[in-house]
Amino acid sequence: MMKKQNVRTLALIICTFTYLLMGAAIFDAVESENENKYRNALFESERLIQRRFNISDVDLKILEAIAFKELPYKGGNQWKFAGAFYYATTVMTTIGYGHSTPSTSWGKTFTMVYAFLGIPLGLVMFQAIGDRLNHFSSYIIRKVKKMFECKDAVATETDLVIVVTALATIMTAGGAAAFSYYEKWTYFDSIYYCFITLTTIGFGDMVALQQDSALDSKPEYVFFALIFILFGLAVVAASLNLMVLRLVTLNTEDEKRDEAAALKAAKDTVHLEGDIITGPQHGLLESSYNTEKRGSGTESTTSSFCSCDCDPARLITRPATAADDPDKVASDCFARKLFKTSRVRMLRKKSRIELSDTRTTIWSESPKLRRFSE
Amino acid sequence: MMKKQNVRTLALIICTFTYLLMGAAIFDAVESENENKYRNALFESERLIQRRFNISDVDLKILEAIAFKELPYKGGNQWKFAGAFYYATTVMTTIGYGHSTPSTSWGKTFTMVYAFLGIPLGLVMFQAIGDRLNHFSSYIIRKVKKMFECKDAVATETDLVIVVTALATIMTAGGAAAFSYYEKWTYFDSIYYCFITLTTIGFGDMVALQQDSALDSKPEYVFFALIFILFGLAVVAASLNLMVLRLVTLNTEDEKRDEAAALKAAKDTVHLEGDIITGPQHGLLESSYNTEKRGSGTESTTSSFCSCDCDPARLITRPATAADDPDKVASDCFARKLFKTSRVRMLRKKSRIELSDTRTTIWSESPKLRRFSE
Repeated sequence: MMKKQNVRTLALIICTFTYLLMGAAIFDAVESENENKYRNALFESERLIQRRFNISDVDLKILEAIAFKELPYKGGNQWKFAGAFYYATTVMTTIGYGHSTPSTSWGKTFTMVYAFLGIPLGLVMFQAIGDRLNHFSSYIIRKVKKMFECKDAVATETDLVIVVTALATIMTAGGAAAFSYYEKWTYFDSIYYCFITLTTIGFGDMVALQQDSALDSKPEYVFFALIFILFGLAVVAASLNLMVLRLVTLNTEDEKRDEAAALKAAKDTVHLEGDIITGPQHGLLESSYNTEKRGSGTESTTSSFCSCDCDPARLITRPATAADDPDKVASDCFARKLFKTSRVRMLRKKSRIELSDTRTTIWSESPKLRRFSE
Repeated sequence: MMKKQNVRTLALIICTFTYLLMGAAIFDAVESENENKYRNALFESERLIQRRFNISDVDLKILEAIAFKELPYKGGNQWKFAGAFYYATTVMTTIGYGHSTPSTSWGKTFTMVYAFLGIPLGLVMFQAIGDRLNHFSSYIIRKVKKMFECKDAVATETDLVIVVTALATIMTAGGAAAFSYYEKWTYFDSIYYCFITLTTIGFGDMVALQQDSALDSKPEYVFFALIFILFGLAVVAASLNLMVLRLVTLNTEDEKRDEAAALKAAKDTVHLEGDIITGPQHGLLESSYNTEKRGSGTESTTSSFCSCDCDPARLITRPATAADDPDKVASDCFARKLFKTSRVRMLRKKSRIELSDTRTTIWSESPKLRRFSE
């Protein structure tokens, strides 16, 4: 039988390709006809102008190339500080409008180095802000629920999803209004611009801050546009954190679980072969344990059922208890490995086990005492 | 004192802004001078042509606008199936070259809907493939180490990072060679193209499949370019999975840990105040438990120390054991909550507890028997 993770990956690949094929078919249907009409109209108008001024084909080509290359420069100074900051933002966030791109080799090289370090930094930062945003939202939700004296004043996941979605909607709608005012775009186009920007697709067919030398002349608008992008991406990160991140880590978590299970199986085998005290696990014996609480400080022959080499200081263990069943000790080691792997390090507790015949003496530190001594 | 997560987020924000400011300063220094030279040269040549053909300023503007809008159409049919598939890929992966963008409102609307569903799907798929790739790499590393009879035939994280980095380098270098051949770009430019594509920045200053109507006439090259993008992004996902994903989830994990700790504290308090059987935890009583193995099927008054409302079927519990210490039961509930939160659902075990005075009767199902009955 195929492993769950492989099946899932295969299913995802099939889904994605189906989705791409479907998308291609629909985009073809929606845009293809318009494309032909639009292209013919463009070529027609060009031909008219060409004939009117009697421009040779070669010169027209040169003129076209010049016109295309001039475009970024019409937006003002793209590489003075404000423009360079805007460019750095589009690189780091992977929006990459392409409204201005490096023309020197040094510029290209530095862009690569910059992106290599900046993109992971940006990813981690946006996720961190997103997480804080979710945390803050759930705090607000709880407060509001308390205020209205709801039965359970807790923030459920659904509440959070609603709040984050509302936040994203308000932000896009508000941002679009501002862009539509400053750029003189239609409201629909502004929404499209905000969406394409915040998903980091960044086509570059519509780019803010490119009209009337806005980069040089409207500092307040530059500030707004940049803050919109950065805060907007944080909200997107919050919703990804809430809805997608756990799906992203599914395979990795399954893998860890499988490893832990394999480890457990290996452990069990050892148990069966080499250990006398395996009886209770397999339902053959009836045993009684005598559990004693002993004063701290006195320790006698301390031995452990656990044969794993795990470092107790780094482990998560059940708090305040010691082994009272050989079985449980073995399974504890398994659990330890698992949690060590999944990096949940929570409580550090010492448990010391003494074994003499079928009598198990347990000394467990009181959590209260521990808190004092720490 | 500020919470660890807030401090971290603040530090990340400061880092990011510093990085952006630094980037802006360097890009300014590298590109700004060149920008002025280049712009002047372009405007100069344009003026020359304008004067030669005696084109009015208005007509020149129209001609420029036409030239700019015509550009996508020179690459062939952008919205026939191959082109539409290419477009769908750039949307789903958030590369967004912008070499062709929807011109109809329907096209724009559908692009938004398509991206809204497609980007999360793509993210999850690429991470799934990336994880499988890492898994496969570690398998190969182990095999190779065994072949060369290394002391420990295990794949360390460093090994994996080296392998994934090597894979990414080979892929970029190989891809660049192919693009440089097909597109007649310099090798450096091809490297730049591959990098900008695989980081999903996708400026669109250089776009594959746009020369000589490649989309219509070179199916094998179209196939190669698409596979390069998809496989390349999987390799990038593998390295993110290895190096960045755990940083991304740091805050969320800390939050869970804090919640669990708060829960534990609450639990402890309840224990101290309301529960008679708290004795052993606080070192006041000495109690003895009699543990019995009982046949399945017989159940008497089943009560639990656990006061939490967790659904046993969804829980992770220590395998094969039952409560043998009131203390432990309480801490188990705490552990349950924790693992429920972190969505590690692993082993489903029933433990039933009977309590009569200080005598606790424990019935724990044998894992062997369970395996049979399931």
